[in-house]
Amino acid sequence: MINLHSLYTFIDLAGTFAFAISGAVAARDKGLDVFGVLVVSFTVACGGGIIRDVCIGAIPPAGLSDWRYLLVSVIAAIIAMGLSPLMKLLDRPVILFDALGLSLFAVSGAEKALSFGHNNEVAILLGMITAVGGGVIRDIFLNRIPVIFEKEIYASAALLGAVVVVAGHSWGIPNGWVSPAGFIICLVIRLLALKYHWKLPSFSERKK
Amino acid sequence: MINLHSLYTFIDLAGTFAFAISGAVAARDKGLDVFGVLVVSFTVACGGGIIRDVCIGAIPPAGLSDWRYLLVSVIAAIIAMGLSPLMKLLDRPVILFDALGLSLFAVSGAEKALSFGHNNEVAILLGMITAVGGGVIRDIFLNRIPVIFEKEIYASAALLGAVVVVAGHSWGIPNGWVSPAGFIICLVIRLLALKYHWKLPSFSERKK
Amino acid sequence: MINLHSLYTFIDLAGTFAFAISGAVAARDKGLDVFGVLVVSFTVACGGGIIRDVCIGAIPPAGLSDWRYLLVSVIAAIIAMGLSPLMKLLDRPVILFDALGLSLFAVSGAEKALSFGHNNEVAILLGMITAVGGGVIRDIFLNRIPVIFEKEIYASAALLGAVVVVAGHSWGIPNGWVSPAGFIICLVIRLLALKYHWKLPSFSERKK
Repeated sequence: MINLHSLYTFIDLAGTFAFAISGAVAARDKGLDVFGVLVVSFTVACGGGIIRDVCIGAIPPAGLSDWRYLLVSVIAAIIAMGLSPLMKLLDRPVILFDALGLSLFAVSGAEKALSFGHNNEVAILLGMITAVGGGVIRDIFLNRIPVIFEKEIYASAALLGAVVVVAGHSWGIPNGWVSPAGFIICLVIRLLALKYHWKLPSFSERKK
Repeated sequence: MINLHSLYTFIDLAGTFAFAISGAVAARDKGLDVFGVLVVSFTVACGGGIIRDVCIGAIPPAGLSDWRYLLVSVIAAIIAMGLSPLMKLLDRPVILFDALGLSLFAVSGAEKALSFGHNNEVAILLGMITAVGGGVIRDIFLNRIPVIFEKEIYASAALLGAVVVVAGHSWGIPNGWVSPAGFIICLVIRLLALKYHWKLPSFSERKK
Repeated sequence: MINLHSLYTFIDLAGTFAFAISGAVAARDKGLDVFGVLVVSFTVACGGGIIRDVCIGAIPPAGLSDWRYLLVSVIAAIIAMGLSPLMKLLDRPVILFDALGLSLFAVSGAEKALSFGHNNEVAILLGMITAVGGGVIRDIFLNRIPVIFEKEIYASAALLGAVVVVAGHSWGIPNGWVSPAGFIICLVIRLLALKYHWKLPSFSERKK
């Protein structure tokens, strides 16, 4: 039987790695120094999870107290900064890592909120916040409007992934199926949105 | 006898509606997509309250766990985005909604901090933070210096509203009078400041 | 025998004064009004500590519940705004105050996390976050990339100060020595970095 706690820890660490790569590459391209890249990488990777943990009362936040999060984001930052051949490989795939991180965090955020005994709405909202929080912090640090508010379906994919997790648990579907389903649905929607430039409509044109 | 808890919940929901309208209009005018408008609207409306709840130990924050906050901000965002005739009516009044939200949140923030047993300073500061937090987050998202630091008397009106609530309770004035008094004083000062362009002095001119 | 709790409160208040001066001068130079300067000054001075307190479960945060923090930052803001002769003296030394605040908060952040029973990693990370948090918030408010990510050794000095504190306590070095050692090491590194423009390398040049 799958242990829910170790499941979401594993998913969380994988998401941490994915977002740390994306944060480190963005920080490196802005010309930040080594330590700046490490800090941004860690903040992007763990920021969403720290917000989630503070909101569900998981004190101190796992991102601060569990050395594995720090280690994973330092390793990701070193890979992004230093290993040139790998870096070349990663330059394009960073958007894939970002999509992986989004899907992993949407699931782990919802799972953790549920495992702390909170209600479905908290789990859905914090799943999405865990998933998009790091990217919003990255864009605020880099002094631009968070891209999640403008680009292809992004936060809405995370929301759907979290909804799948919460619905799966409340319908009594076995744990081993729920997280993978939420992950795959979020990831597929995000990748399809990237490939076909799916966008949600906006209403500002009405003013022209 | 008025129940303090349901009083501040009602005030809080009214403030949520007012700020959600203001956030949604700002996000729509920036050209964000439907989901972006919903997210900004919810964040502006509930951001200040979530900060307050985290600081007073009200875990999970009401903005995340109470579906009424989400519902109210979604309705406000739909009104701001979709209902053109209403939207036209709301375009100018957005500044009035903002003033209403400011006054409602200053009162509800202070009331909630007191009802959780915290001291007067916590109640006053969190009243103000609840009131201005959403607007500060909105401006950070939209990548500009938070207007509250520069424009007509704003945060200081919220501070005064919170002071009135705290002073009223510590002087033993009946509950039914305290919140309305704080609300009205904050609102009147804000509206007068808007009408007559009251500004606090600044000291930067000395450097010219 | 030195009482650890009153020690870090004193250090914390000294750091609050130092950062409040730095926040108030920056806000004044941006032309904010009197109240805006007070708010920015308080936020810069207490923001890092409030994040720390929320993360270690010290509810409500000392910055909100202990009137001395508010008083100290109001006094610092008044000095920065009003007392012209003193202000002239402070205009250059603001960078020294910032270095003092950095060193004091790195130590007090780590001490407080330990005194709440958290592990070494939490203490080190929160020491650094307490130290740099206020400055990051200041730069986000003033709508620029946080300078700590780009300029001379800064966050890394705070990290080292926090490491010294944590290492000192876990090696059983007497309390009276640990905090001063962490403070002095952080301060000396920061001042030397300022004097000789020490910078950590960055990797962005590789892309040219």
